[in-house]
Amino acid sequence: MAPMTTAGEEMHALVKRLYPICRSITGDGVRATLDIVGEYLPLRVHEVPTGTRVLDWTVPQEWNIRDAYIADSAGRRVVDFAASSLHVLGYSVPVAATMPLAELRAHLHTLPDQPTWVPYRTSYYTPQWGFCLAQETLDAMPDGEYEVRIDSTLADGHLTYAEHVVPGQVTDEVIVSCHVCHPSLANDNMAGVAVAVFLARELAQRSPHYTYRFVFAPGTIGAITWLARNAERVERVKHGLVLACAGDRGQLTYKQSRRGDAEIDRVLRYVLRASGRPHEVREFTPYGYDERQYCSPGFDLGVGSLTRTPYAGYPEYHTSADDPDFVSPEAMADTLAVCREAFAVLDRDRRYVNLSPYGEPQLGRRGLYDSLGGRSDAKEAQLAMLWVLSLSDGGHGLLDVAERSGLPFDTVAAAADALHGAGLIKA
Amino acid sequence: MAPMTTAGEEMHALVKRLYPICRSITGDGVRATLDIVGEYLPLRVHEVPTGTRVLDWTVPQEWNIRDAYIADSAGRRVVDFAASSLHVLGYSVPVAATMPLAELRAHLHTLPDQPTWVPYRTSYYTPQWGFCLAQETLDAMPDGEYEVRIDSTLADGHLTYAEHVVPGQVTDEVIVSCHVCHPSLANDNMAGVAVAVFLARELAQRSPHYTYRFVFAPGTIGAITWLARNAERVERVKHGLVLACAGDRGQLTYKQSRRGDAEIDRVLRYVLRASGRPHEVREFTPYGYDERQYCSPGFDLGVGSLTRTPYAGYPEYHTSADDPDFVSPEAMADTLAVCREAFAVLDRDRRYVNLSPYGEPQLGRRGLYDSLGGRSDAKEAQLAMLWVLSLSDGGHGLLDVAERSGLPFDTVAAAADALHGAGLIKA
Amino acid sequence: MAPMTTAGEEMHALVKRLYPICRSITGDGVRATLDIVGEYLPLRVHEVPTGTRVLDWTVPQEWNIRDAYIADSAGRRVVDFAASSLHVLGYSVPVAATMPLAELRAHLHTLPDQPTWVPYRTSYYTPQWGFCLAQETLDAMPDGEYEVRIDSTLADGHLTYAEHVVPGQVTDEVIVSCHVCHPSLANDNMAGVAVAVFLARELAQRSPHYTYRFVFAPGTIGAITWLARNAERVERVKHGLVLACAGDRGQLTYKQSRRGDAEIDRVLRYVLRASGRPHEVREFTPYGYDERQYCSPGFDLGVGSLTRTPYAGYPEYHTSADDPDFVSPEAMADTLAVCREAFAVLDRDRRYVNLSPYGEPQLGRRGLYDSLGGRSDAKEAQLAMLWVLSLSDGGHGLLDVAERSGLPFDTVAAAADALHGAGLIKA
Repeated sequence: MAPMTTAGEEMHALVKRLYPICRSITGDGVRATLDIVGEYLPLRVHEVPTGTRVLDWTVPQEWNIRDAYIADSAGRRVVDFAASSLHVLGYSVPVAATMPLAELRAHLHTLPDQPTWVPYRTSYYTPQWGFCLAQETLDAMPDGEYEVRIDSTLADGHLTYAEHVVPGQVTDEVIVSCHVCHPSLANDNMAGVAVAVFLARELAQRSPHYTYRFVFAPGTIGAITWLARNAERVERVKHGLVLACAGDRGQLTYKQSRRGDAEIDRVLRYVLRASGRPHEVREFTPYGYDERQYCSPGFDLGVGSLTRTPYAGYPEYHTSADDPDFVSPEAMADTLAVCREAFAVLDRDRRYVNLSPYGEPQLGRRGLYDSLGGRSDAKEAQLAMLWVLSLSDGGHGLLDVAERSGLPFDTVAAAADALHGAGLIKA
Repeated sequence: MAPMTTAGEEMHALVKRLYPICRSITGDGVRATLDIVGEYLPLRVHEVPTGTRVLDWTVPQEWNIRDAYIADSAGRRVVDFAASSLHVLGYSVPVAATMPLAELRAHLHTLPDQPTWVPYRTSYYTPQWGFCLAQETLDAMPDGEYEVRIDSTLADGHLTYAEHVVPGQVTDEVIVSCHVCHPSLANDNMAGVAVAVFLARELAQRSPHYTYRFVFAPGTIGAITWLARNAERVERVKHGLVLACAGDRGQLTYKQSRRGDAEIDRVLRYVLRASGRPHEVREFTPYGYDERQYCSPGFDLGVGSLTRTPYAGYPEYHTSADDPDFVSPEAMADTLAVCREAFAVLDRDRRYVNLSPYGEPQLGRRGLYDSLGGRSDAKEAQLAMLWVLSLSDGGHGLLDVAERSGLPFDTVAAAADALHGAGLIKA
Repeated sequence: MAPMTTAGEEMHALVKRLYPICRSITGDGVRATLDIVGEYLPLRVHEVPTGTRVLDWTVPQEWNIRDAYIADSAGRRVVDFAASSLHVLGYSVPVAATMPLAELRAHLHTLPDQPTWVPYRTSYYTPQWGFCLAQETLDAMPDGEYEVRIDSTLADGHLTYAEHVVPGQVTDEVIVSCHVCHPSLANDNMAGVAVAVFLARELAQRSPHYTYRFVFAPGTIGAITWLARNAERVERVKHGLVLACAGDRGQLTYKQSRRGDAEIDRVLRYVLRASGRPHEVREFTPYGYDERQYCSPGFDLGVGSLTRTPYAGYPEYHTSADDPDFVSPEAMADTLAVCREAFAVLDRDRRYVNLSPYGEPQLGRRGLYDSLGGRSDAKEAQLAMLWVLSLSDGGHGLLDVAERSGLPFDTVAAAADALHGAGLIKA
């Protein structure tokens, strides 16, 4: 009997499907990626014309590529875009020429320390062309003439990004943002996209408190475009998470928002610690993924970043070694689980006001005490009620109660439900 | 020659005298207890009628008991209230019946893990009857018929509590609160009562700054009743201490107020640390003794709790093993000493304002310097004056000075007296 | 070929030259000292008449001394002021008498534990006369009659202090204050004077942001006099440093201002830590040097104190063993270097406001990114720009950026210059 397909395996299958596509900050690769994501989630796709001013930036020309190669004098393709989208410098201008290896070298990028890996390189804002290849490939290329061809276009067009919204009970929003601009790299960031997709599907089952907005956009310019076009919505974004590098086998890393004490920061710290997972919590730095934009001082949103091994922290980073084997179903399932746990806490965290704050209210009279007998979970439930009553002064939420009391968040939330049901606290 | 009777021995004698009485949250046991306390201290006794609304609670019916036993078929009392007030479930409704052991068992409470100890159990707000006995007693009871009799009454009456006031120079108050509702348990809380009694007598010798109010009341409902009847006075309660478990041989434990940085918290932390005693300082939790009520968020008073081994922290807790041998004269004397030291600091702590804050005032001209020569205690006195001058900016008190300077509080207070005498600072 | 004279050696030479002079809180010794300092730096010398009220104090009579000795019955001087200015109790009233040793002893001060050292003693405000001598000298004095003579005058005159100002781009001031009232003691404080002199000369080369005011004044009464006469200027004193004990071979010690988090405190902590020097940072205490006056609660200036081994922390303190050999050129050069580094940071620390705070500004378009390639110093420069942009919200300065980012202050300052040049931030 075949085992049931797990979410981890389904996410890994999605990564493998998305992996080969040649993505960039604009172009048909992003569209093809969003088409596949759209099979899993209804998406609203936005197309923003070249030249549009977005904050301090301008939407660039759209880049598309059909073919690219370096062929030797025998016409044999020694470097071929068809084999890997990494082989072409991102945003390469077109070229069709024949030149000696000596001249070609200025356009070739390798990793001498990792001679079998192909690096990932781009030149978005300075017109150039180039190829990325393994050092051992280069070493094997004899001197002589080579044909180089990049069949790309750089022309007015659009920048493409997409949103999926899980409606909540309130219009306050939580954003989950993933960059979709990297070509054939698995961990960075198709794994993040896959986890976001499955997270969105789970959230939809829950009828959440907050409205959750998933943003799939090219890095930097895409997040800037989203921010520029959502000036009013930004007021409603209370929390957020940038998901990246979500599938490698390393431990989880949470990078705090610029504020450092935003609720998302406290929730992630709490959930990671309470879960017993090995993990690291890092201070904000203005480098990394799109938290750079969401946390820029004018916005200063409560947006953190969850990764496994963080930005640039593994040798395979931005190389052909970041392939589907580099990410695992188990790791993606684990990242998804932490997101699920964190958003469960975030979604349920609330500040209450004790309506009977003078002395303890008589719980027994309301059936909140007697019924509990002496079982240890019942004692914990009763203690949780006393803690919620004690801290519900308008200045503390349920997460504060869980942290101060050492009781599980779920126990605290259940106590709040019971007290709310008895009319002893109000939200 | 007989040794002088020490305070520790006198307190222990008081515990022994109070120990046998069957106390509960209402009834003649509380009155008998307060009668004895009244031989040591003038008390104002309050009687609050059944049915009185007190905050969220209602004063219950008064419970009194005259006799109770389980007799075997030969008429021999195998469990007898006359031997220990613990044998009857507190607030037991009356019963007079004969029943087989199998039926009786549902009404019997034992401690299987401590087969020679009798547990302490109550059922204040759910009408029940029951007996508490040693597991070994139960094990020795053959099957067969037993006569059970509890000659108790549960009827409209009063809740009784008492106050003793040591008048101070100001009407701001410090409350010291002890629960008096537990039957034959020595550490919990006749030791606390005894320490409070001797503390009150000492304070009366001192002409203190604050007015000290000692409250002897049943736990929970008594403190709630006091709070309900003293709504205006609560404004004047600046500090407080709940005294409990004051006589066991364990180290001292101070449980901070809900505020955590109330002056009483700082004083107890300072005094315990400065004294070199092994001790523990704990964060507030909404469980324990009547600090639960005083620190409920509507009142949020600066009331901490001083115990030796804390609430439920020793195996003898709420059993017949908490008897007069479990508490020692030395431990009670030590608890009393810490209270004495803490209230000396609390009573003397004051914020002053430096009236000559620009540069140092010339101490020599005022006889505060030259006279001090080079003796080390004189140097310390002079340094204390400089510290008091430096920190007397309206935002720091003498305890702050002692903590920041590392100088003994008494030295700091003497320096403040000297500076105040010279007109250099004002309160 | 002779080695170039270093600043350390020049400072040491200055200490040796100043060392023999008999200084006190008033008198010609201070004037002679300032005359020599005036050869290095233009000074403005102030003379404040006896009897002038200064804050809570009054300028005392001026003390001058020409000769003093104890001669034995053979007329041989066994203690001679000409050998060391320490031999006379500071502010001794004149005396000319013959008396037996037994009577003389009450006027003699020695250090029994250090029998070869002469102590330093004064009696500014209580009229007395006395001699300080080595215990071994006293031990060798046979009983018998001695001639004692102190040819001093205590008369209306002036208190003398001096200032040197290095003008800055703003009128906000940094004060550097040294006491000049101690007679023949090298570390305490001719070394401090020497470091201040060379620091002032270096600052003048730099066209600093702040105006730097160097105050050379007698301890306590001198600082009090300066404060009394500069009530309006005090508003402009933003930072300050008391320099003392600047030349011994011990590690550096920074004593924080009373505020503890003044910018000078943060700067010194940062510079000492970043420099890797062994050092100690101490909390403020209201004892020590003239930080006592600058930090008195009415002024509460951001003035710390930099020493090597601190106040009274070495056996040679206030004895004849604090001679020019006790201080070293290397130690003074090191103290000077830390002052230079600290004032470079203090002078450059500034809060900026990011003028493009919504998202990151496009650095590449402004030539702040592309030009940087992949060199590691270029990456650091770019990262520094992102940090400055991120934290330039009006609430953080460049020192904050250096501390938070871990980047060198100079790199951060250069990034701010580049961003300011591009119009992306304003001061």
